[in-house]
Amino acid sequence: MHSVGICGSDVHYWQNGRIGDFVLKQPMVLGHEASGRVVKVGSAVTHLNAGDRVAVEPGVPREVDEFFKSGHYNLSPSIFFCATPPDDGNLCRYYKHNANFYKLPDNVTYEEGALIEPLSVGIHACKRAGVTLGCSVFVCGAGPIGLVSLLAAKAMGASQVIISGFCPLPVLVEEMLGCMPQISIECTGVQSSIQTAIYAARSGGVVVLVGLGAEMTTVPLLNAAVREVDIRGVFRYCNTWPVAISMLASKKVNVKPLVTHRFSLEQAVEAFETTRQGLGVKVMLKCDKNDQNP
Amino acid sequence: MHSVGICGSDVHYWQNGRIGDFVLKQPMVLGHEASGRVVKVGSAVTHLNAGDRVAVEPGVPREVDEFFKSGHYNLSPSIFFCATPPDDGNLCRYYKHNANFYKLPDNVTYEEGALIEPLSVGIHACKRAGVTLGCSVFVCGAGPIGLVSLLAAKAMGASQVIISGFCPLPVLVEEMLGCMPQISIECTGVQSSIQTAIYAARSGGVVVLVGLGAEMTTVPLLNAAVREVDIRGVFRYCNTWPVAISMLASKKVNVKPLVTHRFSLEQAVEAFETTRQGLGVKVMLKCDKNDQNP
Amino acid sequence: MHSVGICGSDVHYWQNGRIGDFVLKQPMVLGHEASGRVVKVGSAVTHLNAGDRVAVEPGVPREVDEFFKSGHYNLSPSIFFCATPPDDGNLCRYYKHNANFYKLPDNVTYEEGALIEPLSVGIHACKRAGVTLGCSVFVCGAGPIGLVSLLAAKAMGASQVIISGFCPLPVLVEEMLGCMPQISIECTGVQSSIQTAIYAARSGGVVVLVGLGAEMTTVPLLNAAVREVDIRGVFRYCNTWPVAISMLASKKVNVKPLVTHRFSLEQAVEAFETTRQGLGVKVMLKCDKNDQNP
Amino acid sequence: MHSVGICGSDVHYWQNGRIGDFVLKQPMVLGHEASGRVVKVGSAVTHLNAGDRVAVEPGVPREVDEFFKSGHYNLSPSIFFCATPPDDGNLCRYYKHNANFYKLPDNVTYEEGALIEPLSVGIHACKRAGVTLGCSVFVCGAGPIGLVSLLAAKAMGASQVIISGFCPLPVLVEEMLGCMPQISIECTGVQSSIQTAIYAARSGGVVVLVGLGAEMTTVPLLNAAVREVDIRGVFRYCNTWPVAISMLASKKVNVKPLVTHRFSLEQAVEAFETTRQGLGVKVMLKCDKNDQNP
Repeated sequence: MHSVGICGSDVHYWQNGRIGDFVLKQPMVLGHEASGRVVKVGSAVTHLNAGDRVAVEPGVPREVDEFFKSGHYNLSPSIFFCATPPDDGNLCRYYKHNANFYKLPDNVTYEEGALIEPLSVGIHACKRAGVTLGCSVFVCGAGPIGLVSLLAAKAMGASQVIISGFCPLPVLVEEMLGCMPQISIECTGVQSSIQTAIYAARSGGVVVLVGLGAEMTTVPLLNAAVREVDIRGVFRYCNTWPVAISMLASKKVNVKPLVTHRFSLEQAVEAFETTRQGLGVKVMLKCDKNDQNP
Repeated sequence: MHSVGICGSDVHYWQNGRIGDFVLKQPMVLGHEASGRVVKVGSAVTHLNAGDRVAVEPGVPREVDEFFKSGHYNLSPSIFFCATPPDDGNLCRYYKHNANFYKLPDNVTYEEGALIEPLSVGIHACKRAGVTLGCSVFVCGAGPIGLVSLLAAKAMGASQVIISGFCPLPVLVEEMLGCMPQISIECTGVQSSIQTAIYAARSGGVVVLVGLGAEMTTVPLLNAAVREVDIRGVFRYCNTWPVAISMLASKKVNVKPLVTHRFSLEQAVEAFETTRQGLGVKVMLKCDKNDQNP
Repeated sequence: MHSVGICGSDVHYWQNGRIGDFVLKQPMVLGHEASGRVVKVGSAVTHLNAGDRVAVEPGVPREVDEFFKSGHYNLSPSIFFCATPPDDGNLCRYYKHNANFYKLPDNVTYEEGALIEPLSVGIHACKRAGVTLGCSVFVCGAGPIGLVSLLAAKAMGASQVIISGFCPLPVLVEEMLGCMPQISIECTGVQSSIQTAIYAARSGGVVVLVGLGAEMTTVPLLNAAVREVDIRGVFRYCNTWPVAISMLASKKVNVKPLVTHRFSLEQAVEAFETTRQGLGVKVMLKCDKNDQNP
Repeated sequence: MHSVGICGSDVHYWQNGRIGDFVLKQPMVLGHEASGRVVKVGSAVTHLNAGDRVAVEPGVPREVDEFFKSGHYNLSPSIFFCATPPDDGNLCRYYKHNANFYKLPDNVTYEEGALIEPLSVGIHACKRAGVTLGCSVFVCGAGPIGLVSLLAAKAMGASQVIISGFCPLPVLVEEMLGCMPQISIECTGVQSSIQTAIYAARSGGVVVLVGLGAEMTTVPLLNAAVREVDIRGVFRYCNTWPVAISMLASKKVNVKPLVTHRFSLEQAVEAFETTRQGLGVKVMLKCDKNDQNP
């Protein structure tokens, strides 16, 4: 492995040993935002060779079920997923994975490769939202996920995107954008923010729920319903790696500024502490002793 | 006018003088599920003639705004709509309407013509839900709207549809259908029923909110989000009359059994009482003294 | 194996040893419209048991490529497909297949199970066409594929479907339907018929090419383009077995009348001759000596 | 009027008096790529005032027909359209139009406003094509329409776009892009180029026909069909002005370099000659004597 980013969920497992129904019952390797270099490939693998620089898609479906067959493998209940109990992640020196790797073009760095994972969340959210040319988009939450949603929305043709760390009044959203947004992307999971996201969206628009909050939420469902504002969630992503690699290789999206901190693997505790305290945006762990470059 | 059905909203205006933000400030003619015969047409009208039997689409956009232009005229805020304050409805002997009428084929009765309005709600709900071949559908609420949703779902190719008057446990829904439904159509507006509709829906599925309930609703939004179960509302309908007429003319949908009561226009109070008490399914008022046939 | 239908392509390989670029270089078992009973399952198979009655989907993707991942496994270039050289088909007594079988409900016969394959072509064509409630559909070609397209179109809510064995003038199509069809499904592959299918379709409509004809075709592309009539082909199908089983189990589609001839496996030559001569609609070979029932 | 661009169709009417079935029978004002300043508004107009700078959408539907109602007013057969016989265009000093104008933001110039019309062709083509994040796009034809298609494709998130003035071998397209394009946008109308566009497109992809050629075209329809490569035409555009204005105001698309020549209205013949000879890209006529600025 070369570079592995720390995600909020990694910190959550570290601190709490569980996220919702996913409970740690035995030690688990963390990490799922990763890139590295191929050391060895199985005999049936023809598209990769030792030495290839790759980005790792952490989800690998185990069954060819109805979800997989219809193009939504992220919804397959038995999917393997790095660092979701009981599946080990890839924050380590060496890691064995299904050959579901994606080769990185020469002009895409390892860190960009690792950042494809969070970027994929933004891409999937914007695809689910139907962001298209000339859209106005309101992003709630200015953490890493809010930022990748903003990047993806702009890359998909949104003409106006505003991002807000806190929860403004709907009228302020309209004032800032000059119109009600067609799409609200909610990345906080906070109830009041979800309410704002709904009220703010234009009739016929979409609210995408990316942030995860409480099990039950009180929302103005009537307001959403009679204005045909759709409410759509996202579960991770699917079919985003090729898209993201293509965008990074053509320099259409710049994710590099997201990395604010770097630590060697030996400094992992310090790195996790940095994320836990909400310092910076993305903390990157450098797993290759011989190459600590981006 | 020939036949005008009574809708729950008509009763609501009669009893309460308002529905949400729509408040009666002066007398208003009720009725928006209507059919009749053309007496006279304006000089610019070429597709209709005196004597034509017609069904009346009650909504007529007043402005060519962004919603109208993009095919969603039902969302146009300034739309004229029969029996929504301050616009008069058509429960009367003679009525003047935009030439936005639809001629009824000879083999479609006036009452079928009037029932196109509630059927349109079912069609629009099923279109918004994306009902297609082989879908399994769970309809919550067995009143007129639940029933037209069931008719529309079956006509659109749903292989299994269950309808429930009350709010069963999600596990019972799955047991009855033999699988989790891809689509839940919620027609009651009751919070517990909306919750069931969400829990019951299959991952990647859709919950359509047709029933209108309280302003704020507490729902398992997290459960919906992480399973990518979309929540979509409906506001009336658009582009449904030609579809409905085509289905009625080809006998693909049979709405006739929905009419359980008929009253002459003079018996209007009795008719409204019947609907208010929840007796039967659809109460039809017969406005033409000379022709009280279906 | 229990029942295996004969497809035009089977006859073509038998008579010509090739279809387009697919050339027979060594003996190949024919047959891909099949159902049977499970004799034995591999150790990893949990959803099937010996004794289960099953329908066989003949296509099984060999690679998890971009097509498979995005829900279009039929387009995967390396897909295994029964009776497409060099892959053997299943017109035989015993046959080994990927566990990509579908269990048949008790109320679906083996022959219905075998007919899911041609029905799938109709379903996929109608899905690609976007057939929905109230559509008017023109089907060109009244062979087995034309007929399953008609069945699928009606099941998906088409209000009017006409089917034509020969190639009528577009004006006759409009006259028969009472309007220009929104969708033309072309099942002959004949140039003049494709031309009619295009001219006949309503502006904004769709022509689906199901029949395969010559490599190059002369068509009124300008007429299609300026009226935004989309031209869409189909390559086999994907994700249709669960849908078809659901439709057959709920008796929404009746494919039984398609079977006009039955032969025992020993009479295979006679059976193929029957299909070659274009007698009847669907010829079924009965592979199970002990059970020659439908 | 302030600025009016010259379109190939204007030259065609000038030289030939007809385009296909549209035949000039009496003198007609040319011009449909236009912007200007409001002098006076009708009594019912509330969204515009004298003095407002506006861009003119040249198509205005005359009837509320099925096409208009469903969001495809460009397909309405009775639509008014500037400079399509017998409807006069707006290449003149003063012009009266339906209040279907779009106000220009202060930071969008008149010429940008006039260029919204050709840009709309590119936007509509890319919308019909389904261009989205990470798409690879092949544009055939490097005239004004090819260029606006390229601009629109890039703005909608295409990661790789190549444009070709002539008709390369499909293998060269793949070599230049590094993959087969998901989308081919054909802007020449030349048969050999349409053939290339089809062969070049990836399985499951789309060919959009923007260029208009001969009535009948010989194409590899079989190749397109069995690879599910859709063939879609465009007829002008719909719902593009608000999108384009939003993109121009936010500086996401730069159309200014398209203007290579400017002439005063008095020099119209010279201007038309320039376009006829294929010099430059876009020729702009300046209709306002007092303001010849961009």
